[in-house]
Amino acid sequence: MYSFQHYQELLTNEINNLKFEREPRELYEPIEYILTIGGKRLRPVVTLMTCDIFGGDLKKAMYPAIGMEMFHNFTLIHDDIMDRAPVRRGFATVHTKWDENRAILSGDAMLILANQFMLKADDDVLREVMELYNISGLLVCDGQQYDMNYESRNRTSIDEYIRMIELKTAVLISSCFRLGAVIAKTSSENKDIIEKFGHNLGISFQLEDDILDAFGDYSKFGKSIGGDILANKKTYLLLKAFELARGKDLEDLESWFEHKVHIPEHKVQAVLDIYNKLNIRELSKKASRHYFDLSIEQLNKLQISDDAKNTLYELADYLINRDS
Amino acid sequence: MYSFQHYQELLTNEINNLKFEREPRELYEPIEYILTIGGKRLRPVVTLMTCDIFGGDLKKAMYPAIGMEMFHNFTLIHDDIMDRAPVRRGFATVHTKWDENRAILSGDAMLILANQFMLKADDDVLREVMELYNISGLLVCDGQQYDMNYESRNRTSIDEYIRMIELKTAVLISSCFRLGAVIAKTSSENKDIIEKFGHNLGISFQLEDDILDAFGDYSKFGKSIGGDILANKKTYLLLKAFELARGKDLEDLESWFEHKVHIPEHKVQAVLDIYNKLNIRELSKKASRHYFDLSIEQLNKLQISDDAKNTLYELADYLINRDS
Repeated sequence: MYSFQHYQELLTNEINNLKFEREPRELYEPIEYILTIGGKRLRPVVTLMTCDIFGGDLKKAMYPAIGMEMFHNFTLIHDDIMDRAPVRRGFATVHTKWDENRAILSGDAMLILANQFMLKADDDVLREVMELYNISGLLVCDGQQYDMNYESRNRTSIDEYIRMIELKTAVLISSCFRLGAVIAKTSSENKDIIEKFGHNLGISFQLEDDILDAFGDYSKFGKSIGGDILANKKTYLLLKAFELARGKDLEDLESWFEHKVHIPEHKVQAVLDIYNKLNIRELSKKASRHYFDLSIEQLNKLQISDDAKNTLYELADYLINRDS
Repeated sequence: MYSFQHYQELLTNEINNLKFEREPRELYEPIEYILTIGGKRLRPVVTLMTCDIFGGDLKKAMYPAIGMEMFHNFTLIHDDIMDRAPVRRGFATVHTKWDENRAILSGDAMLILANQFMLKADDDVLREVMELYNISGLLVCDGQQYDMNYESRNRTSIDEYIRMIELKTAVLISSCFRLGAVIAKTSSENKDIIEKFGHNLGISFQLEDDILDAFGDYSKFGKSIGGDILANKKTYLLLKAFELARGKDLEDLESWFEHKVHIPEHKVQAVLDIYNKLNIRELSKKASRHYFDLSIEQLNKLQISDDAKNTLYELADYLINRDS
């Protein structure tokens, strides 16, 4: 077993060696671009690490792991169009750098490339790998649709929000854990436990992402701070604020989210002021911690060495204490 | 072996029985919609028919055949966004009936559903089926990108155009033929020949489509007549007209394609007048016939019964003499 950084390096080397030299360049340039601007490579790291922990052959996990990363990046390209997001990981989004048509089509091509990487799994796990991949992929689409539905709706409950991020974020992360376990051919029990571990960790991870979007440091986070606030995203933070705000705070909050015309910086600052007054950051951290604790409960059930448990614990800890 | 119509009915029954009842409805409604408004179901018919001809089990071909139809419909949803097309098969396109975001996301979900249908192939052909599907899917994306490239370019050669429709149309059709042959587990030789048969037929099919777009009957064709002319699509018809037009005809043709402001009906009529003067319809028919003849050459090489050859001949004949 290795550190997060080691798996990350292995992956970055592999990904940098991938050649998408085929024509037409207009289609493959955006794919190279989004893979180059990187990100944490969380999902494929998780697959490699899990495969390793269950005694599997890392080489057999490499391409399916990259397939998951490609799938994730495909969703980013298309989500950014739908969300009209200008910046991703500190760089222009694909539809901003080129145009919407190229973003739609290169996203499509990337999904098919992801299929091809998944298909590099060995025969004896191929069907299980492909079924896991497709089921989780479809659930990610479900989650994105709920996300869009909630944006155009006045009220969303915190339960609905949690269900949405389970679909949009946690499912793919938990599937990446399960994928590593499937390739390592561990027991069904271990597969189920590691998936649940990943699922709760994924929820916690997304809550941390929401917190960073409001309170992070732009130079580290790579997205515009306050982007969710400006997009009227129904995050845990906002929903909690609506739950707790009273009197003038509630009126202000409602007015910022109802009026379409405003100076962006003013809106972000005003909403952050209300968040601070209502202790939203700490309350969100508490919610994140709740799911983190649930994931650790699962971790303790796994039939693996203490070393292996430690590796997973460190991963979990890094994910909820990160600044980017 | 059965008639085209019989396979079509089998497929329509299966497709109508598919339930996409899962939530969120916003995501699955457009998928049901595009599958319901139908079309010829050419691609899955081809797979069933080919499987049958090579003595395969139709039941084993059914879901992968539907997978190819789902893949094709996914490309229609996304292509229609990129082409800004308002009408498809006589009905509003998905992004027109709903909105662009729902068209992007339901197209994505449909591609993943297509993956799932392909995965219903038997274990002993699974990898071959999935590889064929992914390779052809990626080539279809390549073709769509070339199509967009050519629209924003002043001149395209007829050779470039043929290469583009090979990718965008012929590859998927030829893969549907090959898919039926793979599921029937016929010889490699037969697989290669039927694929070539389908490839040439696919080019002929697209040329006929271009002819119908300019000279068809709207009530049968289901798309706006002259849509390609209005979209400045570099079709075989237009490229041939540019090749042959001289003097005032050439000037007129250039001016219609350079000026952005015009009354649509006037542009369509004026271009059709030039097409008629230059005998473009007949010249395009001749090109289509050329590829049809190439496909028949392949047909004659197949080691199958005369009855089976006849069935394929009738299919080919129907495809290039259709009015919709």
